[in-house]
Amino acid sequence: MDNSKIGHHISGQFNKELEDIRNKVLAMGGVVEQQIEYAIRSFTTNDTELAELVIKQDNQVDAMEMEIDLECTQILALRQPAAFDLRLLLTVLKIINELEIVGDLAERIAKMAIQVSENDSRIDQYYEIQHMAELVQEMLHGALDGFARLSIDEVSTIINQDDSVDREYASIVRQLITHMMEDPRNITRTLNALWSVRALERIGDHSCYICKHLIFMVKGEDVRHLSPKELEQKIKA
Amino acid sequence: MDNSKIGHHISGQFNKELEDIRNKVLAMGGVVEQQIEYAIRSFTTNDTELAELVIKQDNQVDAMEMEIDLECTQILALRQPAAFDLRLLLTVLKIINELEIVGDLAERIAKMAIQVSENDSRIDQYYEIQHMAELVQEMLHGALDGFARLSIDEVSTIINQDDSVDREYASIVRQLITHMMEDPRNITRTLNALWSVRALERIGDHSCYICKHLIFMVKGEDVRHLSPKELEQKIKA
Repeated sequence: MDNSKIGHHISGQFNKELEDIRNKVLAMGGVVEQQIEYAIRSFTTNDTELAELVIKQDNQVDAMEMEIDLECTQILALRQPAAFDLRLLLTVLKIINELEIVGDLAERIAKMAIQVSENDSRIDQYYEIQHMAELVQEMLHGALDGFARLSIDEVSTIINQDDSVDREYASIVRQLITHMMEDPRNITRTLNALWSVRALERIGDHSCYICKHLIFMVKGEDVRHLSPKELEQKIKA
Repeated sequence: MDNSKIGHHISGQFNKELEDIRNKVLAMGGVVEQQIEYAIRSFTTNDTELAELVIKQDNQVDAMEMEIDLECTQILALRQPAAFDLRLLLTVLKIINELEIVGDLAERIAKMAIQVSENDSRIDQYYEIQHMAELVQEMLHGALDGFARLSIDEVSTIINQDDSVDREYASIVRQLITHMMEDPRNITRTLNALWSVRALERIGDHSCYICKHLIFMVKGEDVRHLSPKELEQKIKA
């Protein structure tokens, strides 16, 4: 699907409003992507200044969500859109909710980074966590890219990637538990790492949810609770 | 506010549709409340059959969410509602999303209950967890009650209750960490308890989010990211 889909309104003003909302969602997504990037970097390098920045950025993300939410509500009230436009607006409301949650999760990682740095502690699994973070970042970026292009061509790939994330998550958790058992003095700091990888795993899930919202937007069908196989069929149909 | 607010439409059919949606949200809330009840009971009594039931109920909750979501979308498309009706429908979309997440969290507790029972392990903090669960259940029940009565009279009380939940959560986590340190063989099973109380704490948060959605519905203002003090002023205004 190309962007001409939202360029068909007689009212040029309405076009402008929808375009404006899409740009704002992408801008919000950009800030959230940066939050994840910085949160992981602060966690792996003990950079508390960067972690503080992530926490500040969360206010910006919250404000962006409220602004977009209000604009969508106003357009729904004034323009009374139907068909694709209605789905676009309802999808935007859902996507910004997911992004806000992802921002909160990045903030949680940043807070853990600050706690870890206070204890001056090191976790051995930084390399693995870094790799899992990269996978998750790719997923979110792909999902936002799909929204930018109003395209669901890549959503299967992104949703399948979540299996790799889950496997890496399980492996890191096992390593961290072993770490705790070997030396109980590690428990508190290792729990911080555990909460952080848990947050990363959740970001992967929310990236999948964004993909599923995109399918609703493009196809008009709610696929949130389908099995991976059913989902594949819907996308191809 | 009384229910006459949604009884003012010239179209009796539209009234019926809105009433129908509200009843379905409350029915969905009822199932989710039962899920929490059963999940906690299965966790504290090692009742795996009850835990399996919670997991099955999650499919029901997912189906209810999809049905209500579709009905809201159709009403938005066909009736093009404005003012309070529009806010009611947008609020329903948000509340069912919160309820679906709460259902997932209850399911997670049920899964932990099954794991704990397999290890035939006991956690000493059952009494504290039980008490925290009761608080959280009260919060969700109050939030759903506010939706049923289209009233925000109790939302301040519910949101303030979340502080007690957070305090109990922090206290239980401290106890569980001590427990792990004392005997590293406890780590795996204690982590299950840790994830479960974490899920309870999240249910408290989502009950607060429902309250904030109610304020939007009644007052028409987005209060999600206000401080508790600012929130209090908005509710009274």
